[in-house]
Amino acid sequence: MNYRLIFKLIGNVLKIEALFMIFPLLVSLVYDGGDSYAFIWSFLILAVISLLLDRLKYKDRNFRTRDAFAVAGFVWLLFSLFGALPFYFSGCFDSFTDCIFESVSGFTTTGSSILTNIEALPKGILFWRSFSHWIGGMGVLMFMMAVMPSMNASSVNLLRAESTGPSPEKIVPKIQEMAKIMYLIYLAMTVLLMILLYITGLPVYDSVVNAFSTAGTGGFSIMNTSIGAYDNIAAEIIITIFMFLFGISFTLYFFLLGRNFIKIIRDSELKFYLGTVVTAILIITVDISRMYGGVAEALRHSSFQVSSIISTTGFSTADFNLWPTLSQIILIMLMITGCCAGSTGGGMKLIRILLLLKLAKIELGKIFHPGSVKPVSMNGKKINNDLVSKTGLYFFIYFAISFVSILLISIEGKDIVSSVTAVIASISNIGPGLGMVGPTGNYASFTSFSKIVLSFCMIAGRLEFFPILILFTPSVLRKR
Amino acid sequence: MNYRLIFKLIGNVLKIEALFMIFPLLVSLVYDGGDSYAFIWSFLILAVISLLLDRLKYKDRNFRTRDAFAVAGFVWLLFSLFGALPFYFSGCFDSFTDCIFESVSGFTTTGSSILTNIEALPKGILFWRSFSHWIGGMGVLMFMMAVMPSMNASSVNLLRAESTGPSPEKIVPKIQEMAKIMYLIYLAMTVLLMILLYITGLPVYDSVVNAFSTAGTGGFSIMNTSIGAYDNIAAEIIITIFMFLFGISFTLYFFLLGRNFIKIIRDSELKFYLGTVVTAILIITVDISRMYGGVAEALRHSSFQVSSIISTTGFSTADFNLWPTLSQIILIMLMITGCCAGSTGGGMKLIRILLLLKLAKIELGKIFHPGSVKPVSMNGKKINNDLVSKTGLYFFIYFAISFVSILLISIEGKDIVSSVTAVIASISNIGPGLGMVGPTGNYASFTSFSKIVLSFCMIAGRLEFFPILILFTPSVLRKR
Repeated sequence: MNYRLIFKLIGNVLKIEALFMIFPLLVSLVYDGGDSYAFIWSFLILAVISLLLDRLKYKDRNFRTRDAFAVAGFVWLLFSLFGALPFYFSGCFDSFTDCIFESVSGFTTTGSSILTNIEALPKGILFWRSFSHWIGGMGVLMFMMAVMPSMNASSVNLLRAESTGPSPEKIVPKIQEMAKIMYLIYLAMTVLLMILLYITGLPVYDSVVNAFSTAGTGGFSIMNTSIGAYDNIAAEIIITIFMFLFGISFTLYFFLLGRNFIKIIRDSELKFYLGTVVTAILIITVDISRMYGGVAEALRHSSFQVSSIISTTGFSTADFNLWPTLSQIILIMLMITGCCAGSTGGGMKLIRILLLLKLAKIELGKIFHPGSVKPVSMNGKKINNDLVSKTGLYFFIYFAISFVSILLISIEGKDIVSSVTAVIASISNIGPGLGMVGPTGNYASFTSFSKIVLSFCMIAGRLEFFPILILFTPSVLRKR
Repeated sequence: MNYRLIFKLIGNVLKIEALFMIFPLLVSLVYDGGDSYAFIWSFLILAVISLLLDRLKYKDRNFRTRDAFAVAGFVWLLFSLFGALPFYFSGCFDSFTDCIFESVSGFTTTGSSILTNIEALPKGILFWRSFSHWIGGMGVLMFMMAVMPSMNASSVNLLRAESTGPSPEKIVPKIQEMAKIMYLIYLAMTVLLMILLYITGLPVYDSVVNAFSTAGTGGFSIMNTSIGAYDNIAAEIIITIFMFLFGISFTLYFFLLGRNFIKIIRDSELKFYLGTVVTAILIITVDISRMYGGVAEALRHSSFQVSSIISTTGFSTADFNLWPTLSQIILIMLMITGCCAGSTGGGMKLIRILLLLKLAKIELGKIFHPGSVKPVSMNGKKINNDLVSKTGLYFFIYFAISFVSILLISIEGKDIVSSVTAVIASISNIGPGLGMVGPTGNYASFTSFSKIVLSFCMIAGRLEFFPILILFTPSVLRKR
């Protein structure tokens, strides 16, 4: 490992985090200001550490794949660690573990909280929570890439370690150019959402923070009962639509800008996403219509919850803990599948499910036609075997890490549904699960040990396992 | 498809099923005899149908892989269908669906029951239930192969469709010879178990039927509270050991006969099996020791339940529905993993988990050493890539079929834990799950629709998906 270069890069990223802290500081000063000192202290600590790291000298100019993976892993760990400082200094949290949990949950765009009374928190801290979703949304490293023009050669490795899901389309040659454009799309969509929410009658502050949480598909809310608290149908519909939109691969928005409509229409994952969402909404609407005295109200809640869960946002307008088993099972499945690769959302990504379904069909076909060699193809292009086999492996690792985590969580003896869905909701970066961690519950009652396990799940899920597994790999593997 | 040959073969297998019916008929006559007519009618129907099928003429002598898969699928469906006849004629069951469920559960060695008062049933019917486990244990087709010397060329395809799990060792050239030897090992172990159980004080009848249920890793009991009803520690220990033994690949017993001890000691899957069992027993013993007022009693129940679940037998001596979450989660995981490939047990098979763990390690290593091409190896032999990629696919199909089935089961609105574990317990051929389908519960309250879904899961799991999926494959795939 080229540790000197790795930590020099991390220093650069932490510098950006220090700058990010200025925003909540300003918010804090505009409103009550009682939490301003929390951001000032955090800013100073970050500034000093990042400047010290920046002074690291390195001779080895090689930046290998493993280094890129390690940077990705460390950056998320350290970003979350330092991001927890304002929470800690604010004095609103019971322990530093709680601050870490909340911060990891923010940057990984999970949105699960250990807070029991969110509305009691100062406005600066609440802003920082939601803002961390937005920062995490497009990936800290994606941001770094767009900002730092010096790292051209290394960028490919970083992007490989950072980007979510197997990309069916070749990334355009100029990665920095691409990253900038995507970042602008992200910014534009967020601002549009803020404006629309404001038009529906939400206060400026609420429009801004909810837009951040939606764009990052995070789900931190500033209300104890999430978006349901506003009881504002227009805002709900807008958020429903935008959660869905942020679950789509940003490559498609790139094509949209280039008026490349055919590529969008023919995109297999988009069709699969749309089909899944529509089917889930229809079944759940029928299933819950008795509970809400009519199809209209049922459709309102089912579409919001489906869009929220599949995009891995985790906002809620209804307590789906009380819904019938069928609806809950559908939501659990959407938690696992997640949305599209290359979006701000989490989960396994639909393209992986699609790839494996295609592979299953081909293998079944081989029994009828033993000699045939048919590759898996996606959007008309052949997918190489290595990627297909890695997709099967990813599927296995997702469940393997989930199982081990569930085992560790269950030591404290919460019920099965709460333990299992807490892990799934963490590893897929959703937020709420079922049972004690349902939409009206929270993660406060977990032990510190469980909170650390869940924080690990959030980061591992966000980075799609490999970058974070590498940090815990025995040295045998590294040196051989 | 060569349907004429397929159905001629199926006729031959059904002839054997007719002969099998003579055993419960004799048992029935020895005891009360009230249920003898059920077997006489079933025997006659089977005899007529199998003789009619046997008269089928076929010109096409080709027996392709797809035909072998179709035979495997059809045989399990029809064996279960006709095996349900004695249940139906006995009048002890509420509906024909219930008879089918019980019969499928028997032949697939699942052992889940829709009966609420098992002890009320006549002795002949109870014998047939347990006997069906024993028949199913080594595979109906394995039996057919050992008995019918005419089918030499086709046997390889049949074995491929029938055998459980990827076999790490090459099958010896003379498959029939091998099948006969394995069948003798199976028979000898069963008889030994019968004798041992009789020595511990169980009545002859109980020793025989429990030995059948254990050998097939089935789990049908003739007592309402399963093996716990005897409160006989010696019998429990013997059954614990034999459940474990029947979960080992029979290839290893074959090596044992040939005094090839090194192959046994070096077998990765056996080590993994032993390690998993010991670890699970230790953790559960600690976890439940408070419940049973001491380590000794806790160890007794934990070792019995772990052996029962991992071997996918499903006997119980304690109601693990009342155990702490950690122990329950461990049992659920063992339900999914199952035991060794090539045993009478079900589940995913440990060798698959081992293969995928090795693949994960290799892929992680590749990040450190990008150029390295290291194949997955098992017991010192390279595993070809195709098998590895199929293992990932198998893992996906296991979960995909489970998810769809859980979705279908949850329509009737039972709680999540019951719905999910009912499907896992069926697809892994275990029997009891948790919640309503726990050790003291049963499957009686499910709707007919759910019972059919669960029956499908049992057969699909037993045949490891492909043979049964083929019967439901659209004709497009077949004709292309």
